[in-house]
Amino acid sequence: MAKSRALPNHYQDLCKLLRDAATLGSVDALLNWDQETYMPPAGGAARADQQAIISALTHEKRTSARIGDLLRTCESDAELKSDEAIAANLRLIRRDYDRATKLPTDLVAEIARTQSLSQEAWKHARSNDDFKAFRPWLEKIIALMRKKAQAYGTPTSGELYDNLLDEYEPGMTAAQISAIFDPLRPRLSALVSDLTGSKAKVSSKVTEIKAPKDAQQAFGVAVLKAMGFDLDAGRLDVTTHPFCSGMAPGDTRLTTRYNSPSFLEPLSGTMHEAGHGLYEQGLPKVTHFGQPLSEAVSLGIHESQSRMWENFVGRSKAFWSWCTPVAKKHFGKSFKGDVESMYRASNVVKRSFIRVEADEATYNLHVMLRFEIERALVSGDLPAKDLPKFWNARFNEYLGLKVPSDKIGCLQDVHWSFGLVGYFPTYTLGNLYAAQFWEKINRDQPDLEKKMARGDFTDLLGWLRRNIHRHGRRYEAAELCRKVTGKDLSPEPLMRHLEGKLRPLYKV
Amino acid sequence: MAKSRALPNHYQDLCKLLRDAATLGSVDALLNWDQETYMPPAGGAARADQQAIISALTHEKRTSARIGDLLRTCESDAELKSDEAIAANLRLIRRDYDRATKLPTDLVAEIARTQSLSQEAWKHARSNDDFKAFRPWLEKIIALMRKKAQAYGTPTSGELYDNLLDEYEPGMTAAQISAIFDPLRPRLSALVSDLTGSKAKVSSKVTEIKAPKDAQQAFGVAVLKAMGFDLDAGRLDVTTHPFCSGMAPGDTRLTTRYNSPSFLEPLSGTMHEAGHGLYEQGLPKVTHFGQPLSEAVSLGIHESQSRMWENFVGRSKAFWSWCTPVAKKHFGKSFKGDVESMYRASNVVKRSFIRVEADEATYNLHVMLRFEIERALVSGDLPAKDLPKFWNARFNEYLGLKVPSDKIGCLQDVHWSFGLVGYFPTYTLGNLYAAQFWEKINRDQPDLEKKMARGDFTDLLGWLRRNIHRHGRRYEAAELCRKVTGKDLSPEPLMRHLEGKLRPLYKV
Repeated sequence: MAKSRALPNHYQDLCKLLRDAATLGSVDALLNWDQETYMPPAGGAARADQQAIISALTHEKRTSARIGDLLRTCESDAELKSDEAIAANLRLIRRDYDRATKLPTDLVAEIARTQSLSQEAWKHARSNDDFKAFRPWLEKIIALMRKKAQAYGTPTSGELYDNLLDEYEPGMTAAQISAIFDPLRPRLSALVSDLTGSKAKVSSKVTEIKAPKDAQQAFGVAVLKAMGFDLDAGRLDVTTHPFCSGMAPGDTRLTTRYNSPSFLEPLSGTMHEAGHGLYEQGLPKVTHFGQPLSEAVSLGIHESQSRMWENFVGRSKAFWSWCTPVAKKHFGKSFKGDVESMYRASNVVKRSFIRVEADEATYNLHVMLRFEIERALVSGDLPAKDLPKFWNARFNEYLGLKVPSDKIGCLQDVHWSFGLVGYFPTYTLGNLYAAQFWEKINRDQPDLEKKMARGDFTDLLGWLRRNIHRHGRRYEAAELCRKVTGKDLSPEPLMRHLEGKLRPLYKV
Repeated sequence: MAKSRALPNHYQDLCKLLRDAATLGSVDALLNWDQETYMPPAGGAARADQQAIISALTHEKRTSARIGDLLRTCESDAELKSDEAIAANLRLIRRDYDRATKLPTDLVAEIARTQSLSQEAWKHARSNDDFKAFRPWLEKIIALMRKKAQAYGTPTSGELYDNLLDEYEPGMTAAQISAIFDPLRPRLSALVSDLTGSKAKVSSKVTEIKAPKDAQQAFGVAVLKAMGFDLDAGRLDVTTHPFCSGMAPGDTRLTTRYNSPSFLEPLSGTMHEAGHGLYEQGLPKVTHFGQPLSEAVSLGIHESQSRMWENFVGRSKAFWSWCTPVAKKHFGKSFKGDVESMYRASNVVKRSFIRVEADEATYNLHVMLRFEIERALVSGDLPAKDLPKFWNARFNEYLGLKVPSDKIGCLQDVHWSFGLVGYFPTYTLGNLYAAQFWEKINRDQPDLEKKMARGDFTDLLGWLRRNIHRHGRRYEAAELCRKVTGKDLSPEPLMRHLEGKLRPLYKV
């Protein structure tokens, strides 16, 4: 990439304006983070006002006429565009600008305010198991999402949902996702049936110890450090729903929760969010904040990072060779696990209700259900009022369980209350990308398992930094996948991973 | 006050714009709070950018031509102004608007950015005892403060400092403060000499117990609840320098610190900040956020609230009659205090280095020193480089101690690094107001001591709500003081309080 001092003023000014807009956006990220972590309950109404104002101002900055003018000047600067990275940057700035200018500021502010209030309503509804209380908010959110999708114009596919999906997984359509999900579902179902029908004893009992929160936090931090997460530029807090916010250069915040009888779920949550966090820390934000070159490719790619650390690293025998003594150190004598029992404990497959606690094999079935539902909510085929009934019926069909309450059914996820519609399918895309990247990494680094077994993740992180993180959005997800692995995205690596690991464990 | 639905549109629109500006300001408050509590160190540079942008946008909103237009329309609406509270509101909106429009947005942004960076520099300088590292930042801050003061125009007094003071204590001048401080200093010095020369044993040994932070936090929260602080609309966290941020309607945050061998200092800090917090929670923000009617009169009045709870309540025998068993409950057998020993422990008078840990008698001497210094820094009589020498010399003169290091000398306070110049004298004004209010409260409620002795602070808080909190800025400090106590501010109540309590304890 060309040195910044050699760049023409119109490009530097453009980058400055984008940085300012991103800085305002980062304030919004802090407002969100604080709402989930430390904001007192009575602060909710003022928080909604704050978010509405900041979102509106951010949107105004992102869509300013001045950005449009500078962008046009840059686009007609052939010399500037001869730099391939800058050309990619400009192409993406144009895409974002055209999309953003289609959204009226009023709508952006209304969405922000509604998200904030709706999320508080969801929290109450969830803890009271009261879908009726949440229903009007869900209707509002879906109506706003349709309004937003319509503002972008009719998508090529004709399906409104694609305009929402495009925000999270640029270049992907619902039809393409169906084409991947539909043949994958029966294969996963068959695998899950075999595994759950097995008589082999695979249990996580050994991880159910009395570990105070402080000890779990210290253990989580020890794992974060080994993974290479920079705690001078980040933190780990506790929330109802774990998340990662790469809010600003030098400021990436993770959350987890310690409400499980097992110390394994909190650890998985922490490693998952840290996978996101490492990606955020690896993006070139200090130099390029606000530019596409410092942003994540897509949520699918983002999720590939979190899933890789959570599942491909965190549920491997090599990882537990290193981590079992670390757990012993933090939890003392009450923890009686060894490497083999921890490997087995971290690979229990069990049909269950909560997506974020689901194992690797059943997880994607949860996601497929949500994808189908949100697609129907947006098209109008599924009225919000029928959500619980529909959810419960499909859940029984895909996962073979009767949902006893909405609290652990259709009210379990934060996404819809927060206006994140079109987001869910990226979780399974992430698993697919992760599996495909993982096969390549292991071909490139045949000694990776050995290194992991001594807690050395430096070369793994180095590979991710080099091949994925440093590029920002320079390559679209499908292109990045081909560039890195030499192949189009395929379900085979994930199926190989699951079958290869779980069938021997379950002797089926 | 007239009902809001009867109000003309120009007034309602004006209030809406002020509310929006205040909402943006509340975002800045969150950025500050987060920087002190949870922001990771590497987030400092981005935080400075965030604060610069938010401050500039807030300033733009506060000084918009539309506010000017609406304000003029309201000012010429005789019917509207027939409501006394609205008339006061409009008078103050005019004052604030005229002041704010004198500050260029660039300067506001530069100050915000410099504050943010300078504060990080101060933190390092303080912990490394390195004044030289902080000196260039102090110089920058003082230069910016002079620039700011000059932007307001020449004050009536001709002394630039008054323009800075006016932000914190409207209507007060440095000359007026000198007129109060100068005769007070020798009286305080004489009292301190008598007390510290006494052979009476007044010790805080009994409060030096091994109390883990969790227990201290729980104890602090128990006291907060008894005081009437609403924890659904607030929090208590830990910072290097305790503070209170009444950031938004329903969101008032306190901080304290637990780095003392005694549990008393953290408690005093908590009660002090809670005094501020109760004032913030008592202001009519839900209905009037952004309007002067929902804001604090001045920092002096604000400090009168914190000092009252910290000193007049928290160091009284009545308080300890209730609080000693509460402390026993939280700290268990390691705590061996009784009411008498706790009363004595909370009234130890000792010459010491740190202002925020100083006792009631010596405290004001610390403040007078800072007032003298910042006045000289602004006038240019004292170059920043000479600060340590000057500080140490005056400290020795006023408090009779040789300062061994800048860390516990001129680097101890956060204020100057944060651009808070003109702020310090309000601490002593607060003590004076508190003493004068306290005498009146006790005349109005002769059974107050009895109530405090059973942990019932309801009527005290009720009195403060009725007489001070609910008015917002409707009355200026001097006027409020006359209205509430029937008299002008006087040093006599404070001297009566100190002499009356401390001479018997010290038998001098």
